[in-house]
Amino acid sequence: MRINVFHSAQMVTESQMRSCTVIVVDVLRSTTSIVCALKNGASQIIPAHDAGEAALLQSQLGRKESLLAGESDGLKLPGFDFGNSPLEFTTEKINGKAIVMSTSNGTNAIHHARVAAVTLIGALINRTAAAQKAVDTGNDIIVLCAGTNGQFSADDIICAGGIVSAINALLETSAPMNDLAYMATELYSSWNDKRFSLEKTSHYAHLKQLGFTEDLKFCFTEDITNVVPVYSDGVIQ
Amino acid sequence: MRINVFHSAQMVTESQMRSCTVIVVDVLRSTTSIVCALKNGASQIIPAHDAGEAALLQSQLGRKESLLAGESDGLKLPGFDFGNSPLEFTTEKINGKAIVMSTSNGTNAIHHARVAAVTLIGALINRTAAAQKAVDTGNDIIVLCAGTNGQFSADDIICAGGIVSAINALLETSAPMNDLAYMATELYSSWNDKRFSLEKTSHYAHLKQLGFTEDLKFCFTEDITNVVPVYSDGVIQ
Repeated sequence: MRINVFHSAQMVTESQMRSCTVIVVDVLRSTTSIVCALKNGASQIIPAHDAGEAALLQSQLGRKESLLAGESDGLKLPGFDFGNSPLEFTTEKINGKAIVMSTSNGTNAIHHARVAAVTLIGALINRTAAAQKAVDTGNDIIVLCAGTNGQFSADDIICAGGIVSAINALLETSAPMNDLAYMATELYSSWNDKRFSLEKTSHYAHLKQLGFTEDLKFCFTEDITNVVPVYSDGVIQ
Repeated sequence: MRINVFHSAQMVTESQMRSCTVIVVDVLRSTTSIVCALKNGASQIIPAHDAGEAALLQSQLGRKESLLAGESDGLKLPGFDFGNSPLEFTTEKINGKAIVMSTSNGTNAIHHARVAAVTLIGALINRTAAAQKAVDTGNDIIVLCAGTNGQFSADDIICAGGIVSAINALLETSAPMNDLAYMATELYSSWNDKRFSLEKTSHYAHLKQLGFTEDLKFCFTEDITNVVPVYSDGVIQ
């Protein structure tokens, strides 16, 4: 079993993913939000390419049966029911409905991974459960970070490192991996040992400036749920 | 002064580099070799896109005045005077001549950086001197790693982290930087503290398997020279 980490969708081709289990990570905040929404009773999540497609999909599903979630540059889209804050997705608000979601980077990474043998949604809140579900497939594993506009995003790399560390712990060995997977585990370990914080990193600092302090705290809490969403045929459940 | 690190040439556009000082890094082994060759008396280094162009350039320069250096997948190209081992580039062998060089990743990264305001050649052996020369230009700084076939290569990231750390030390502050620059300094610090070694990383392990143990040791020795080559008008001097 081999483990590769890629920092954004553009770094991995469809043919590289076909026989693999891909864990998509956008820890700040869309994959954390997706895990939360399904944990709190959403019937399904439908990732859209953009806000326009999200609105169209919702009109097809019916406004009574579905809700709209979406952000651009960290902020909720006008007229949408939710932004991209995991803490918004409460059982009360979701009420068993489907959620159509469009986010800046996360939903596109999920679409890119549609060709994988198995596509899972990973975050730190389901880190060990996502690792277990991926290991159970027996496939080679790719952790595909959403990144930020195609660039390396430290928050996603720390999360990827956490998931790879959990996989290694489950396998009771260090699996063969690419350099980024190896460096991600080192960064996760250093971050866990409080050798550095994410305060100065770009996306984290941007969300903090927008006032999402509670979101940041929540997104970097580990292993609070065993929910591991699966993306298949255009739907996350 | 802003510092950005990119893990391969494809991650940065020409327009992003135009007003910057770019330090090109291919620590295993082409930028280390270039620094060595100029330190040991080469009149100039001419980077070629591939082995064919290298041979053509040498025929134009004349075989008496120039030497050919080149590797593919770590090994010396047939009929070439040098491979890509920095230890080969001795004063005796070079004898004041020009060297035409083609390597798998390094020379292409150097070509990509030709549009920068200033293009420097960096390695660990000239880490602090390269940082000083870049700071002296007063421009924003990009550390452009050659990477391995477009992918993240841990050896280059450690070297980039070492250079960024040296820049921060010279500025007596932590300059604003992108996430990869910040994570590279963390990885360099962890590597320096012997929290991990590069033994398991891809390119390092490949060169070790080919028997280049002395090269690996040399390329990861810091600050043994103040030579900082400059690339301009197709020539490194």
